[in-house]
Amino acid sequence: MTRFKLVIEYDGGPFVGWQRQENGPSVQQALEEAVFAFSGERVTSFGAGRTDAGVHALGQVAHFDLARDTTADTVRDAVNFHLKPQPVAVLLAEPVAADFHARFSAKARSYLYRIANRRAPLALDRGRAWPVQQPLDAAAMQAAAQRLVGHHDFTSFRSSICQAASPEKTLDRLEVTRAGEEIHIRARARSFLHHQVRNMVGTLKLVGDGKWSAADVSRALAARDRAKAGPTAPAEGLYLTAVDY
Amino acid sequence: MTRFKLVIEYDGGPFVGWQRQENGPSVQQALEEAVFAFSGERVTSFGAGRTDAGVHALGQVAHFDLARDTTADTVRDAVNFHLKPQPVAVLLAEPVAADFHARFSAKARSYLYRIANRRAPLALDRGRAWPVQQPLDAAAMQAAAQRLVGHHDFTSFRSSICQAASPEKTLDRLEVTRAGEEIHIRARARSFLHHQVRNMVGTLKLVGDGKWSAADVSRALAARDRAKAGPTAPAEGLYLTAVDY
Repeated sequence: MTRFKLVIEYDGGPFVGWQRQENGPSVQQALEEAVFAFSGERVTSFGAGRTDAGVHALGQVAHFDLARDTTADTVRDAVNFHLKPQPVAVLLAEPVAADFHARFSAKARSYLYRIANRRAPLALDRGRAWPVQQPLDAAAMQAAAQRLVGHHDFTSFRSSICQAASPEKTLDRLEVTRAGEEIHIRARARSFLHHQVRNMVGTLKLVGDGKWSAADVSRALAARDRAKAGPTAPAEGLYLTAVDY
Repeated sequence: MTRFKLVIEYDGGPFVGWQRQENGPSVQQALEEAVFAFSGERVTSFGAGRTDAGVHALGQVAHFDLARDTTADTVRDAVNFHLKPQPVAVLLAEPVAADFHARFSAKARSYLYRIANRRAPLALDRGRAWPVQQPLDAAAMQAAAQRLVGHHDFTSFRSSICQAASPEKTLDRLEVTRAGEEIHIRARARSFLHHQVRNMVGTLKLVGDGKWSAADVSRALAARDRAKAGPTAPAEGLYLTAVDY
């Protein structure tokens, strides 16, 4: 039995999310069916980040065990072959120790959120960024974002269906930068609450709009009340970029 | 009567190309129908570059005349509204002199060609780059590309259905750079022959592969024979990025 770690890229658009669900196709199911098609083995795969419907990945990590004797390169190429034509690609496969767990061994998760800040609708990047027409002040967003960095009770940025045992998380990094007509928000933490990144982005957008100040963000955080923070930013702008072990 | 110049972005995937054709939807038709929906006027639009089926644009330029009294911002927003849900967006509209012609007034056209040089198939960039699995030598491609810069008879890189009066063109720039797993080829000229960029890219790919030398590229150019140059690179990697006037 060999445990394989895979780094996976996907377009979240056609999926109900990473995790298997009754209501539609998931990335997990697509992966497991591709593994079955090549190996004849019914594996259960575990993902580092349970991305929601529409959320993309540039570097999701998953693991599963295979009984057959095979190489990591064969796993990568065979799974990619059987994933077609779905927009999921295995970038890397490698054998790992039997106690490696994609989810529980993860030391940090990194996300990128893309806001397309322009008047024109999106043509090439439709479904790949949050289109916001009014000009946003990225410097003000960056200053306000620093109020959220550190160890906090993030109840105000937590989805009501979040299953985490505790609302306390340590946010290592929340960087807002402008790149031409795009605003990039990069978040890094050991782990995040459900919808935490999207709720932080929706709140920072209020700052970019000039509706909120950095002090308002601090007040929202201190309130420990989801109703006191901004709305949830759409899934289509979010990318799971990397998982560190 | 006012002449409007539009800068347009589109995903070429669902279109038969810029130009109206009997066999499917074109960007020109989508634009003209959106103009009609907003103004009630049946205009004929002229594009700077007649991009082929599947070729994208980040900065196509088109013009048309409107009899009604309106502003450029209204044209941009109303055309964008009526273009939905097609992946075409007007980035900019401005009134221009009555003798401005998107095609004939253009002083330079710039294209970007994206090669995704990695083993894994594309998930997020499917249809947006040419996937090439074997590692390409971008430095060798860049050196060979310089053999094509300047004023030449580009018959070897010209499609058999090209309607240009002369095969002689002046290529101002052909730059090959690597950006991580992507190879970017940027081409600039007053005008190009039909398929010229894609045929140059297909030839440079042979150099990147190690199959051809820079001297082979010079020989192909000198032969003035399409059969002596490399194959046509796929449309999906090509972007019309800018038109200068």
